[in-house]
Amino acid sequence: MSERIDLPCHSSRSSLLSSSSGYNNYRGLLNLVYILLAMGGGRLVLENLLKYGLLVQLDLPIIFLKDPTQWSAFILILLVNIFIFITYYLEVKVKSTLSQLINLFMLLIFPVIYIEIRKPNPIGTFLAVSIYSIVFLKLISYIHINCLCRMQWINDNKGKKTDIFEESLNDYVTEKSSTILVKYPDNLSLKDLYYFLFAPTLCYELNYPRTTGIHKNSLVRRLCEILFLSSLEYILIQQWTLPILRSIDRPLNELSTFTIIEHLLRLAIANHLIWLIFFYLIFHSCLNVVADLLQFDDRHFYSDWWNAEDIADFWKKWNIPVHTWCKRHIYKPLIKDYGLSKAMASFFVFLISAFFHEYLISVPLRMFRIWSFIAILVQVPMAFIVKYMNREARYGNIAVWISLILLQPIAIILYLQDYYYKDYVQQN
Amino acid sequence: MSERIDLPCHSSRSSLLSSSSGYNNYRGLLNLVYILLAMGGGRLVLENLLKYGLLVQLDLPIIFLKDPTQWSAFILILLVNIFIFITYYLEVKVKSTLSQLINLFMLLIFPVIYIEIRKPNPIGTFLAVSIYSIVFLKLISYIHINCLCRMQWINDNKGKKTDIFEESLNDYVTEKSSTILVKYPDNLSLKDLYYFLFAPTLCYELNYPRTTGIHKNSLVRRLCEILFLSSLEYILIQQWTLPILRSIDRPLNELSTFTIIEHLLRLAIANHLIWLIFFYLIFHSCLNVVADLLQFDDRHFYSDWWNAEDIADFWKKWNIPVHTWCKRHIYKPLIKDYGLSKAMASFFVFLISAFFHEYLISVPLRMFRIWSFIAILVQVPMAFIVKYMNREARYGNIAVWISLILLQPIAIILYLQDYYYKDYVQQN
Repeated sequence: MSERIDLPCHSSRSSLLSSSSGYNNYRGLLNLVYILLAMGGGRLVLENLLKYGLLVQLDLPIIFLKDPTQWSAFILILLVNIFIFITYYLEVKVKSTLSQLINLFMLLIFPVIYIEIRKPNPIGTFLAVSIYSIVFLKLISYIHINCLCRMQWINDNKGKKTDIFEESLNDYVTEKSSTILVKYPDNLSLKDLYYFLFAPTLCYELNYPRTTGIHKNSLVRRLCEILFLSSLEYILIQQWTLPILRSIDRPLNELSTFTIIEHLLRLAIANHLIWLIFFYLIFHSCLNVVADLLQFDDRHFYSDWWNAEDIADFWKKWNIPVHTWCKRHIYKPLIKDYGLSKAMASFFVFLISAFFHEYLISVPLRMFRIWSFIAILVQVPMAFIVKYMNREARYGNIAVWISLILLQPIAIILYLQDYYYKDYVQQN
Repeated sequence: MSERIDLPCHSSRSSLLSSSSGYNNYRGLLNLVYILLAMGGGRLVLENLLKYGLLVQLDLPIIFLKDPTQWSAFILILLVNIFIFITYYLEVKVKSTLSQLINLFMLLIFPVIYIEIRKPNPIGTFLAVSIYSIVFLKLISYIHINCLCRMQWINDNKGKKTDIFEESLNDYVTEKSSTILVKYPDNLSLKDLYYFLFAPTLCYELNYPRTTGIHKNSLVRRLCEILFLSSLEYILIQQWTLPILRSIDRPLNELSTFTIIEHLLRLAIANHLIWLIFFYLIFHSCLNVVADLLQFDDRHFYSDWWNAEDIADFWKKWNIPVHTWCKRHIYKPLIKDYGLSKAMASFFVFLISAFFHEYLISVPLRMFRIWSFIAILVQVPMAFIVKYMNREARYGNIAVWISLILLQPIAIILYLQDYYYKDYVQQN
């Protein structure tokens, strides 16, 4: 044994986790958070597979297509062209705003009556009703802009110039001086109308920013993305969400509060991940593919809603086509022409948004409840509360996420309860 | 309707999630990760309570104390003083290193025999065996340092000076010149030996860095911490870990691989959180309280192991008292006195560490398996692999976490299997 030894081996030192140490490097713990999330997720997948086996039915699309009730939904979608043609005819020949509005009102009423009579499957019907709603919004924009152009054109032909409109047109010409711009009434063609109906925007314009060619590589990559993500959604819904929904096998008032909360949290996590993928699939992949194919160059379909600091901010950022449409055709006209306050105009926009959310869900389920309507309108007071919270501390973004995660599954549970137990409740 | 309208409302823009947008602000998504972790955790707690009810037995400590087999474990703990007194007697009177080593060997063998005869409950026994192991390590250090001091003292009395030892002592004097330093053989008192045995270190020194008084506020805060965290551990083990262990109700070879992996992941997450709290409870709260009470000022009980970049780095950082002891009493003497290479000396340290891990688990369970021994030794090749991985990319820290999370529950499952099915396996 040697006589050399480390003496002293102690010295006055404080523990790292004591505040007196001044130590604060915990970046390794972030790795732990990711590992726990991945491990917890992996365990959930395994538990699900062990409990339920493989629930995914690969032949479901074929069954779906063979189902004759689907054809009535498909016919419903084709029938929307009648209303489009009527709009076109009224725009070119009759030029009466009142007759246009009657036609659009019929467009919203028609699927309700058709579905009540033919009773098709809710999934095909949902698609049809979504298309009817989109066409409705697009035609409102088409009529609104053409009406303005017509008034402008009549004024011009009288020799009077309305400066403001001309100015903004000039702005546009300066930007894209190389292309020849279409002017009213040269835009009134079926080709122009159908281009607008397929384009990834709800706002009609006589001239859109266009690309010069189709990038085939990015188009193929995006089509692969769509194929992969829609398959993933298909699997997640069948394997994860449906067993949770099936486990709520009795009316809610027969379950304990803790059981309801547990089911709600389970559904909320599944539903939210599916919603995130759905967002990417529709707003990024699909709309970009459509834009690629139509050589449409405005790809601003969503803003950075994930950083939204309050609920109003989220609604401004997550669905840009609808937000732009509401601002252009409801919010601004209400303020400028009808002299409403900004708050009242915003409330009106929320009211219309709530109506369409309710329409999209109640009509396919053939069951008029007001859960969606309430879910949208409840955002108005929530937006004020979150804005107030955000002024106090930086919790706004967290509040946005929590309302996003929780409101959807609450509405889903309430609708399914009503759908399955509408007779059950009546018996009691 | 006004003729003023936002025209154009479109411009050439790319989607934010396209790489061409150059956008990369996703800080809002980090909030989502935290919310999903909190929500997933909350759901687990609810699911557990709904499935098992409240499993926590509050009267368990009383049952435990009333159990007469616990008293034999308590007596075993008291009996360690015999070996301490023998060590002290041998050090002061006999001064023979060989007799000391025989006594220490007996100290390790005695609990094995005692437990085989009296068969106490594994929990009390585990505490006793831990205390025997700690006393063993402390006495090795005590004997080693006193042996060196004796040789130095004999040399000094002969008039010869060994510079190196004197130098390092002088270093120490310069640092703490105000206090009077104890010199050999003035340190040879029972009071000095018992101070060392209670002090939060395994390395004996003639003089330790000391504080001047006891901070009552921080002491009370730490005692509350201990009370809260040990209650939390008590609840988590009964409510979370035990149901998982009970659900593995048959030998592993009768379960499918996926079921084993699912149980392992479930156990791993529970075990790891309990281990993290255990680390804080023992290495921060308890050792700091002991240090406060003994006015011991070296609080460096752990380093920043959570940032460890490979497995060897983790073992250097997580348990500083044991690491310092190994370095001072095994690693350095092996290199300096026995001329071993660094790699061989490290391997020898791992071997001793593996022996003690096995000793701490096999003796209380009265069942000699080698799972712990293997779990420690497997770290040697793993350390090389992780170091190699870390050189390639920054995955070292993640590999450390994964081995930490997975190795413990694997060992726990293997021991419990052997404990409950040792007869079962023989029957087949």
